Amino acid sequence: MDKIVYSNILGVFLFKGERILDKKLFKDINDGNRERYEKEFLKIPRVEKKDIVFPKLKEYRDKLCEFNIKVTKEDLKNSVNEDNLIIQTINNSGDLNKVINLLSKRLREWYSLYFPELNERIENNETYVKLLLTKTKEQLAKEFNVESVGARFDKKDIEPITKLAEEIKRLMELKEREKDYLESIMGKYCPNLKEVAGVNIAAELIAHTGSLERLAEMSSSTIQLLGAEKALFRHLKNKSSSCPKHGIIINHPLLVSAKQKEHGRIARHLASAISISAKVDYFHKGEKSNETGKKLNEKLKRLIMRQK
Amino acid sequence: MDKIVYSNILGVFLFKGERILDKKLFKDINDGNRERYEKEFLKIPRVEKKDIVFPKLKEYRDKLCEFNIKVTKEDLKNSVNEDNLIIQTINNSGDLNKVINLLSKRLREWYSLYFPELNERIENNETYVKLLLTKTKEQLAKEFNVESVGARFDKKDIEPITKLAEEIKRLMELKEREKDYLESIMGKYCPNLKEVAGVNIAAELIAHTGSLERLAEMSSSTIQLLGAEKALFRHLKNKSSSCPKHGIIINHPLLVSAKQKEHGRIARHLASAISISAKVDYFHKGEKSNETGKKLNEKLKRLIMRQK
Repeated sequence: MDKIVYSNILGVFLFKGERILDKKLFKDINDGNRERYEKEFLKIPRVEKKDIVFPKLKEYRDKLCEFNIKVTKEDLKNSVNEDNLIIQTINNSGDLNKVINLLSKRLREWYSLYFPELNERIENNETYVKLLLTKTKEQLAKEFNVESVGARFDKKDIEPITKLAEEIKRLMELKEREKDYLESIMGKYCPNLKEVAGVNIAAELIAHTGSLERLAEMSSSTIQLLGAEKALFRHLKNKSSSCPKHGIIINHPLLVSAKQKEHGRIARHLASAISISAKVDYFHKGEKSNETGKKLNEKLKRLIMRQK
Repeated sequence: MDKIVYSNILGVFLFKGERILDKKLFKDINDGNRERYEKEFLKIPRVEKKDIVFPKLKEYRDKLCEFNIKVTKEDLKNSVNEDNLIIQTINNSGDLNKVINLLSKRLREWYSLYFPELNERIENNETYVKLLLTKTKEQLAKEFNVESVGARFDKKDIEPITKLAEEIKRLMELKEREKDYLESIMGKYCPNLKEVAGVNIAAELIAHTGSLERLAEMSSSTIQLLGAEKALFRHLKNKSSSCPKHGIIINHPLLVSAKQKEHGRIARHLASAISISAKVDYFHKGEKSNETGKKLNEKLKRLIMRQK
């Protein structure tokens, strides 16, 4: 039987049959000496793990087990990447939106007991909260030139309302701050995708597919319909409903500003550009720039303009 | 035809047929001189409004209209009472609960990328947020004696998470503050109901019925089942499902701590005490105290103890 060299996380071993002739143990799981050690044991070819019944050797079993757990933990630690952060942040942004709408609705109902005229006049929640916090009922009534039919409140009855408004304002600020954070991660992680699709849509695409990797592996036509799965399958099952033209990308400025009958064509071009940019971002190693994204954007604009 | 005295919101008028002989106009809608003016016009009995075609008199029509609007506005202003405040506050407390749970779930998911061990060990959201904000990952890992498998995060990646946690903490504080406010209104408005049912259940009963007035007019058996309407009607329609024993009052400490088979009896006694206290609070004018509530509570405890 020939001598063979076998290496695992514990070290490099020189075997003859099931007997260890020589060994070099690694200091820790990240020891970089594997190749050097292997060369030291002459130039004998390494064998696959399955050929050796290493774990049967009792003396190494505990250590192997311990090292394996360490390696797994290390892998777990490294498995968290920008994808996860982006997904959490964009989902949190959705949560915050829901929360702000829910609390704003309550605020409007509550404050309307005191000053119902403001609710009718201000539709935007942000403006509503701002006015409520900066001006008194009298000032607002004067500004709108109305005599309020709202009830007279004591100071102690107004206080919980303004506290709620302050909280809503802070939640709005938090949403803005998280948007900045999202921009900064995406600027490094997928600058081209961000450039072409915009921060929100890019993040939603990643959240929908689970990672930039999976997005990069998708065809342009799949990307075009991401988020419209329900409508797509309804169409496939029942030909009477029309095929959806766009999913998540519907909120892209190019589509929002386009005419209805142009939607299909623009969505196709846009999805194609997104697909390219995702591939560039995923497969490009090292420092990333958004140059490809800029070029794609220009091309996209030309394509859309020409055919109008 | 005799002379008659007719008074409305504009003033007091002395009529003969459809002709005004004399009049005293009020200064504003809250003028308290009605009786004095009426006495001045001899001791002629007042007539009902329908007997006079006052609005036909053109010269007063515009003024009457204007005054009527004023009166309506005044009535609107006065229509807001403690019921509305209680309903808004308890509903807001429900909203805040929903919001806190939603954001806490997100926080746990997000922070678990960084330190998953905390999520398994701490079930209470409040404790979770507090620990996250006061201690670093290293301190916590030492405390729990674990080696974390969570990823290494830069400071800029941890920041949005702690910002979210701070926001949740503030929302929790807001909830507490609104609870104090609710206690203070209810202590004045319905001290006995509050004493017997507890702040939350009392407020929920009022929110469910719409006002203390309506609650006071309800029979004890209706109060017992408030909030369990769906189960009640299912029972009435389909005898196979059993009749519900309690609605909103199920969260009362007396019921929470009771054995299952005692629930029906205790709920009956409790609903009866709540019904009495609501009536006392609604029909008692002037300064209110919670003495009746205390007596009812003692009686309730005796009743429940005796039959055990």
